[in-house]
Amino acid sequence: MKVLAILYEGGKAAQEEPRLLGTVENSLGIAEWLKAQGHEFIEGPDSDFQKHIVDAEVLITTPFHPGYLTRELIEKAKNLKICITAGVGSDHIDLNAAVDHRIQVLEVSGSNVVSVAEHVVMSILLLVRNFVPAHEMIERGDWQVSDIARNAFDLEGKVVGTIGAGRIGYRVLQRLVPFDTKELLYYDYAPLPAAAAEAVKARRVEDLKAFVSQCDVVTVNCPLHEGTRGLVNAELLKHFKKGAWLVNTARGAICDKDAVAAALKSGQLSGYAGTAIFTLNRDDHIWRTMKNPLDGGNGMVPHYSGTTIDAQARYANGTKSILENYLTSKAQEPQNVIVGIG
Amino acid sequence: MKVLAILYEGGKAAQEEPRLLGTVENSLGIAEWLKAQGHEFIEGPDSDFQKHIVDAEVLITTPFHPGYLTRELIEKAKNLKICITAGVGSDHIDLNAAVDHRIQVLEVSGSNVVSVAEHVVMSILLLVRNFVPAHEMIERGDWQVSDIARNAFDLEGKVVGTIGAGRIGYRVLQRLVPFDTKELLYYDYAPLPAAAAEAVKARRVEDLKAFVSQCDVVTVNCPLHEGTRGLVNAELLKHFKKGAWLVNTARGAICDKDAVAAALKSGQLSGYAGTAIFTLNRDDHIWRTMKNPLDGGNGMVPHYSGTTIDAQARYANGTKSILENYLTSKAQEPQNVIVGIG
Repeated sequence: MKVLAILYEGGKAAQEEPRLLGTVENSLGIAEWLKAQGHEFIEGPDSDFQKHIVDAEVLITTPFHPGYLTRELIEKAKNLKICITAGVGSDHIDLNAAVDHRIQVLEVSGSNVVSVAEHVVMSILLLVRNFVPAHEMIERGDWQVSDIARNAFDLEGKVVGTIGAGRIGYRVLQRLVPFDTKELLYYDYAPLPAAAAEAVKARRVEDLKAFVSQCDVVTVNCPLHEGTRGLVNAELLKHFKKGAWLVNTARGAICDKDAVAAALKSGQLSGYAGTAIFTLNRDDHIWRTMKNPLDGGNGMVPHYSGTTIDAQARYANGTKSILENYLTSKAQEPQNVIVGIG
Repeated sequence: MKVLAILYEGGKAAQEEPRLLGTVENSLGIAEWLKAQGHEFIEGPDSDFQKHIVDAEVLITTPFHPGYLTRELIEKAKNLKICITAGVGSDHIDLNAAVDHRIQVLEVSGSNVVSVAEHVVMSILLLVRNFVPAHEMIERGDWQVSDIARNAFDLEGKVVGTIGAGRIGYRVLQRLVPFDTKELLYYDYAPLPAAAAEAVKARRVEDLKAFVSQCDVVTVNCPLHEGTRGLVNAELLKHFKKGAWLVNTARGAICDKDAVAAALKSGQLSGYAGTAIFTLNRDDHIWRTMKNPLDGGNGMVPHYSGTTIDAQARYANGTKSILENYLTSKAQEPQNVIVGIG
């Protein structure tokens, strides 16, 4: 059996830190285990993808530096039976094509949910409290409290709403409960179970424009699909409260890049924080440098929120478990199945 | 009656933002109110202190750019009856000298507690999750997830302890409850009431060395006095877990400046975040630029955590309320009294 793992090159960091499991260097900790069973294990960066996909039976990818499995590649992959995403988020795989070619798609459900929820709460706090300009002031040797304080607020008493109250969005709500927000809101296609909504005292708003117009902070915690691509666009941003903060650690493409940058520049948004610009124009992306009129409000980072050292241990273990099930013909955990057999 | 307010110059920020109440420009919102009652209201930056203290009856200061009321100045202040700190933290006033001269000292208790507790939780998250190097990577146009992820962790499963479980420290513990830490610990001279400890499931550790040796994150939330000055020194830092994170938004002088910088440089600490270096050598303070061996771990900001726009409204209102009580000979709220009458 040929297993192809498209990981990213961690370089010196991965050589020095063996817990960086999601890298080519550290192979999710499964290389020796597979080889000992007589399997062929090929791993490499994206450039090896085209060459080895033609006869691989198992493909492992990650959502952090994804190898894009297009319909064209799937048609070349005559032996491919199963795709495993080491992590959560399989939108780099053409799922319709996988269904057409009877290829299973699995991911390590839940491996990132706490990591991302923590990142969201951190991002909300650092935007509302104006952290980045404050730290930059220290670094450049200044000390002018008023320039920071004029745009720093408490989270207490604000209205926070999540677009998507699934496993990440709900964990965000849970973590916000003790902050004494004025209200917690959510927008989702389905209501939370009554006990879950009551536990976090969250109120559902069914109309998206009505939802954003009530929020001081909006956070996006939904998957990217055709129904959510460009969901936060220029039209919707007009309905935001003036000076609201927006945190999107889901997928960049759920927001309209230029509309967000323009809203931040005009002050319609006070801040934007996110982790995902990789699939867009990476090097000169406007989200890297955009600022609000007070030279703050940018909380962008690379897409690492779901790949902390703790999360890597979880998704490496989960990948191994999915492989074990596949090798021994055991049923997969239902929550890990994105595209099942048949 | 002459009221002297030593505030800081907010400059352009304060002219543009009237909610920046703690500045010379916006006078805590009390200038007109006092003048309408026939009182003399003098305000200015620290440079006006020496000139006007000699005949002022009321002195108002803030903890953010404090005017230092030394024993020498108190001896010159023949009319001084009451000092009001617009905010919390009166260690810029020589309290023993105030007692000797029968000068009352009051502050606006509670006005900053939520603001600071939020700042602490934000700082814990951004150190543990390695935010600053991640954001700096975005700003300089790079995208190397492994260089960030290798030193990024989840707060879930870690042990967090607070030195001081008073009104700020306890609010920090409350906000950490939903993060599923492995354990919450506290070190304080007195145990929390049983119900309060149970509500946050916090365990008291009575020996400071034993306390820090169990913590992944230590946060300092106690006042500065002779018993806490230099509390976190080279000797205590040896007892920290290797690679622990330290958050001190209380007073810088509770930590030994050089010992903290050395511990961060060696990796004994993975990070330090704080807000208070003003009373030390402000311009070239080593805390501005210190880093851990992976070029991160610095979460320093100017001392603004308790002076958000929301907090300024609270302490401006509180200052006015204390003044009203004084002018009408009403009893002060007991929790605001640092040095009482007689």
